Amino acid sequence: MTQHSPFTHLNEQGEANMVDVSDKAVTVREAVAQARVFMAQATFDLLQQGQHAKGDVLAVARIAGIQAAKRCADLIPLCHPLMLSKVDVDFTLQPEQHCLAIRARCKLSGQTGVEMEALTAVSVAALTVYDMCKAVDKHMRIDDIKVVKKQGGKQDFDVSDNGVADD
Amino acid sequence: MTQHSPFTHLNEQGEANMVDVSDKAVTVREAVAQARVFMAQATFDLLQQGQHAKGDVLAVARIAGIQAAKRCADLIPLCHPLMLSKVDVDFTLQPEQHCLAIRARCKLSGQTGVEMEALTAVSVAALTVYDMCKAVDKHMRIDDIKVVKKQGGKQDFDVSDNGVADD
Amino acid sequence: MTQHSPFTHLNEQGEANMVDVSDKAVTVREAVAQARVFMAQATFDLLQQGQHAKGDVLAVARIAGIQAAKRCADLIPLCHPLMLSKVDVDFTLQPEQHCLAIRARCKLSGQTGVEMEALTAVSVAALTVYDMCKAVDKHMRIDDIKVVKKQGGKQDFDVSDNGVADD
Amino acid sequence: MTQHSPFTHLNEQGEANMVDVSDKAVTVREAVAQARVFMAQATFDLLQQGQHAKGDVLAVARIAGIQAAKRCADLIPLCHPLMLSKVDVDFTLQPEQHCLAIRARCKLSGQTGVEMEALTAVSVAALTVYDMCKAVDKHMRIDDIKVVKKQGGKQDFDVSDNGVADD
Amino acid sequence: MTQHSPFTHLNEQGEANMVDVSDKAVTVREAVAQARVFMAQATFDLLQQGQHAKGDVLAVARIAGIQAAKRCADLIPLCHPLMLSKVDVDFTLQPEQHCLAIRARCKLSGQTGVEMEALTAVSVAALTVYDMCKAVDKHMRIDDIKVVKKQGGKQDFDVSDNGVADD
Amino acid sequence: MTQHSPFTHLNEQGEANMVDVSDKAVTVREAVAQARVFMAQATFDLLQQGQHAKGDVLAVARIAGIQAAKRCADLIPLCHPLMLSKVDVDFTLQPEQHCLAIRARCKLSGQTGVEMEALTAVSVAALTVYDMCKAVDKHMRIDDIKVVKKQGGKQDFDVSDNGVADD
Repeated sequence: MTQHSPFTHLNEQGEANMVDVSDKAVTVREAVAQARVFMAQATFDLLQQGQHAKGDVLAVARIAGIQAAKRCADLIPLCHPLMLSKVDVDFTLQPEQHCLAIRARCKLSGQTGVEMEALTAVSVAALTVYDMCKAVDKHMRIDDIKVVKKQGGKQDFDVSDNGVADD
Repeated sequence: MTQHSPFTHLNEQGEANMVDVSDKAVTVREAVAQARVFMAQATFDLLQQGQHAKGDVLAVARIAGIQAAKRCADLIPLCHPLMLSKVDVDFTLQPEQHCLAIRARCKLSGQTGVEMEALTAVSVAALTVYDMCKAVDKHMRIDDIKVVKKQGGKQDFDVSDNGVADD
Repeated sequence: MTQHSPFTHLNEQGEANMVDVSDKAVTVREAVAQARVFMAQATFDLLQQGQHAKGDVLAVARIAGIQAAKRCADLIPLCHPLMLSKVDVDFTLQPEQHCLAIRARCKLSGQTGVEMEALTAVSVAALTVYDMCKAVDKHMRIDDIKVVKKQGGKQDFDVSDNGVADD
Repeated sequence: MTQHSPFTHLNEQGEANMVDVSDKAVTVREAVAQARVFMAQATFDLLQQGQHAKGDVLAVARIAGIQAAKRCADLIPLCHPLMLSKVDVDFTLQPEQHCLAIRARCKLSGQTGVEMEALTAVSVAALTVYDMCKAVDKHMRIDDIKVVKKQGGKQDFDVSDNGVADD
Repeated sequence: MTQHSPFTHLNEQGEANMVDVSDKAVTVREAVAQARVFMAQATFDLLQQGQHAKGDVLAVARIAGIQAAKRCADLIPLCHPLMLSKVDVDFTLQPEQHCLAIRARCKLSGQTGVEMEALTAVSVAALTVYDMCKAVDKHMRIDDIKVVKKQGGKQDFDVSDNGVADD
Repeated sequence: MTQHSPFTHLNEQGEANMVDVSDKAVTVREAVAQARVFMAQATFDLLQQGQHAKGDVLAVARIAGIQAAKRCADLIPLCHPLMLSKVDVDFTLQPEQHCLAIRARCKLSGQTGVEMEALTAVSVAALTVYDMCKAVDKHMRIDDIKVVKKQGGKQDFDVSDNGVADD
């Protein structure tokens, strides 16, 4: 490894510190992340049926995800505190794989990207779904948490939608 | 769906509330959860080399995971507050798949299981690894978050170790 | 005022401290609190119509109330930390007064009453309703926040239901 | 209800999300909210006498209110995180109704109004008074929580002072 | 260093984890800690004069200390969450050294000691005094933070009172 | 005391409130604070030996300090919420006095100084070291917490390095 660590959070001694963003440009930044919760067919059917029940499971998970995005800097030690100007979380039922896909979109005008906020939102939304379904299904699995879009920084990208199903 | 919702957090109207655990037995309960972070070969090599750097990346992720386990009830809306008597988080580098496996073990003497705490610990530890490596690898993926062991409740289980690699 | 302050949180110098509950009995304690949100007729109609919209407004407020109950000791300086074994929050539309009534029930087995937790739950649920409706109605009013039932301590009481409408 | 929900936090599906404020103007915004705590004559007298005791009850409540204003986005799920540049909380004893009136003023330079912060401050200050007086008075009531002034946004207003006593 | 680390939070690999307290006895535990804030004579005089001002500075610091004790496990990564049954914080003006002495006493019935809670309380109370006086005195110093009494565990001790002034 | 309180957080009635910073200039501000943990020779030797162990003790303390800096406004009642653009925490072993010196540097572009954030970082880092070493040394002492540098405000200063050892 060279003297200058490729891990931006680590100095030459391998010590972890918050990166200095004082000199980065203030731009509108946006990130989209996803997660997927795989479950038994029977669990999936319960979620898909029963409009009311599903509504509330997903409403609770959405709120948990939004709240978690706002608390990202409190959870991830080296994340900068920042002021999100928008968070939304939405859900798609994917019957062929009996899984629930979750997407979160975060936005701000600031000096750092918001992909960690979007990743935190989908992770906590997925954990909340897990919590609410675990009495009927002990073997769910949360998979495929990743950033699918990042905009407004130096290195933007956008994973095409088929990226979601390439597991 | 029957009148009595199979989702224990939902009442007959599909409304979400915290389950009443007042009458559950106080037992020693334990849960183990895992997560895996898949990364590019080059990122994995950086993590595996450079003892110092790796040390600190994983030390930070371990602390983030432990702190997150303690904050589980604050993050997952219908989780009960509880007093963990032990949390540990450990890491295994899996070179053949260039992934980092994370395990968390939570324990308490109480009225509810601690699988959500263990799942929260591994998820936040994984997100922290992601955060610290994202400058060198934008396409990491967190996968395979699940409970591998649950003990002390009514329905114990223990997924055999090969379960870790059965993705 | 006598030497011994009637305010249990204050010592003889009028200084505020957390009361010592070490010697109080561990009993199952329960409290029910309420709040009411008064709004314009048009706002009330919007809330009453549109099943979906109402569902989500109330689902968000319910979660906010439950989360706030768990954070009570963090908000109210002299409240003891405690481990709620149950929280539920429910809503009743009261068309004659175009107001929304909110009730929260908290329960634990412990050494202190849970009325502050129930009051915090209804207050934050009411504020959340306010937040979600404020774009259509700037002059809502939250009223009538009080404890309606307290059980398991030394001084139990139960305000009869007509208490709710005696404003 | 029209296709476009009048509730700004809900989309067409009635799902709740944080509103996008990225394009709103940065202006100096201010809001004033109030709450009132009604109590028994004897409780009121205790609060009014005994300078020391009163001082500390209100000092504790003021701090609780200020701290709560700063935590508003953590409590109210769809509130934006923001950086208050000023919060103050003050109290008026209203002997004719033996009630305590609480006012909070919040200010910031930003993209969203601060009425939720001011409302949260007075609500938590009122709950704190309730907590400290509940040993002597189990039947207090928190009433009349509302915004009395809002400035710096698109729809300013200022309820005249007699608005405080028009219950 | 022997194979078995003398640091109880570290395993043989030097990795930090929360100690398992599941098997420790539940006893009534108490700890007292102190801190001292040294300031310029002029600052000390301001604090000592003006009853009102002093009252509120110390009232704010006391509340900050109590709140911090409750949040100890959230701040100190390897502390166990626990349910304090009592916290008090008090202050002594020490004119000969123009310093303010702060003491906090924490108590619980549980499986771990509460010295970290007491230390956190005095530290945050001292920081709060610093914050409120820093406009008049930029060179204050917080000193002498230590545990002076610990009871209810395996290794109790009690530093005699002259320990406070032995700096 | 004059009518106008010299304590900027107190009004003429001695009531504590958050200062209004709306009109202060946005400048790049930086502060450096320090703390020192004094320990027994044997404890110091343990910390100095055993690279791994030391590494993790300090890594945990560093993260705790960084996290605490971000939570400063949540801990210190009258601090403004703000968005740190950089935090770093570092450690120096001082063998002659068998003490560990801790320094934190905080930076932001904003309207208020960041010395409270830096002081909070070193205090919590010191408490974390205390927590991890307390099983081997019950009589550690945290001393000498102070601001050593402040830049970007109206009254900058920089205590020369010998200031660190002038106790």
